[in-house]
Amino acid sequence: METLMQEFEKTPRNRINRIPDRGHYDADTVYQILDEALICYVGFIDDGQPIVIPTNHARLGDTLYLHGAKASRMLKLLQEGNPVCVSTALVDGIVFARSVFSHSINYRSVVLFGRGRLVDNDTEKLRALKAITEHIAPGRWAEARLPNQKELDSTTVMAVEIESASAKVRSGPPKDAEEDCGLPVWAGVLPLSLEPGDPQPEARLETGLEIPWYVSSYHRKSDRN
Amino acid sequence: METLMQEFEKTPRNRINRIPDRGHYDADTVYQILDEALICYVGFIDDGQPIVIPTNHARLGDTLYLHGAKASRMLKLLQEGNPVCVSTALVDGIVFARSVFSHSINYRSVVLFGRGRLVDNDTEKLRALKAITEHIAPGRWAEARLPNQKELDSTTVMAVEIESASAKVRSGPPKDAEEDCGLPVWAGVLPLSLEPGDPQPEARLETGLEIPWYVSSYHRKSDRN
Repeated sequence: METLMQEFEKTPRNRINRIPDRGHYDADTVYQILDEALICYVGFIDDGQPIVIPTNHARLGDTLYLHGAKASRMLKLLQEGNPVCVSTALVDGIVFARSVFSHSINYRSVVLFGRGRLVDNDTEKLRALKAITEHIAPGRWAEARLPNQKELDSTTVMAVEIESASAKVRSGPPKDAEEDCGLPVWAGVLPLSLEPGDPQPEARLETGLEIPWYVSSYHRKSDRN
Repeated sequence: METLMQEFEKTPRNRINRIPDRGHYDADTVYQILDEALICYVGFIDDGQPIVIPTNHARLGDTLYLHGAKASRMLKLLQEGNPVCVSTALVDGIVFARSVFSHSINYRSVVLFGRGRLVDNDTEKLRALKAITEHIAPGRWAEARLPNQKELDSTTVMAVEIESASAKVRSGPPKDAEEDCGLPVWAGVLPLSLEPGDPQPEARLETGLEIPWYVSSYHRKSDRN
């Protein structure tokens, strides 16, 4: 789905104050991180208390979709149009500097802001559930049994129109102060990534069913690259 | 450091309402997840707006430590004693069910609640920074150059006494409805884990410095296991 957003306006809400060079406000960077992340963290307020809940998500255009059971506290609070903040971070590596002070993490993170809207028609609901399924494993929607009306009715889908967002990215080697560079301390980057293991077929699987391509060659890199 | 907390009291704030069987309230489970997670997501309120920021952390006993630069908005707001919620999730796998509806993620997540306290003495500050460094890579504090007074003064450390918390854990195979089990759709679990790649030494590294053991054999499994 097409995005309308090109660049998010810098405001006090989304501005990267700490190390502003790491800040990105273009929708391409923000959305690529959001799409690569398997889960996100949804922040909202319940009676003066901040709450952060990890959950699945998907993005279509400038809309973030979340889903859950009807009884979910998070979804109840969000559908009242309350402000929401969603964050996620991809950890790319550990940055070992010679000094403790210069240690860091290589990461790509997103923080976005919007308000919840209950998705109350089945067309948009199905489109969102398809996006969430395809976000987890592109190709899966075409093969799995699709939701029936009862399942659809028992699922709440929330839309968050992305009003404001920014990304923060750190990459590359450690940056020790000049006077530390001669110290006899190993320095460098240890890359980290979320990697798949061997697929574990369910016990009662019909014989002759091959492991699908989107499972056997699973990766989280976005097609936007 | 010893923990005083054995079991967190179930209250409306930390109770797992959705699929209560997945809820855990014992400090062992909660802290093991918190310790294994490389980063966490800190939720707080800024003028009525929920904000969620990914950051490094470490736990000592029943205290969570966060750190950052003096100018950090998050740390400024937290040191005023405002309520904070911290969440993190370890993704263990994707659960492919035969029906879209029964898809899931295997995960271990934590949500905890407390209030920020500025760490204003160097002894506790150094203890916290050591914990944060050792949380990233156990063994590193003994080898890297330790913070000098100037670096210490420019770093803000926050303590969050963990008042309330819960963990939520899903593991195991998909659970399709009986009538779906004959469908010709592959079902099973694809394990996922954060894995290290090959260490990348910094360009100007002194010759003869070997890659430390905590880098070459890096893993995030907690010693508590």
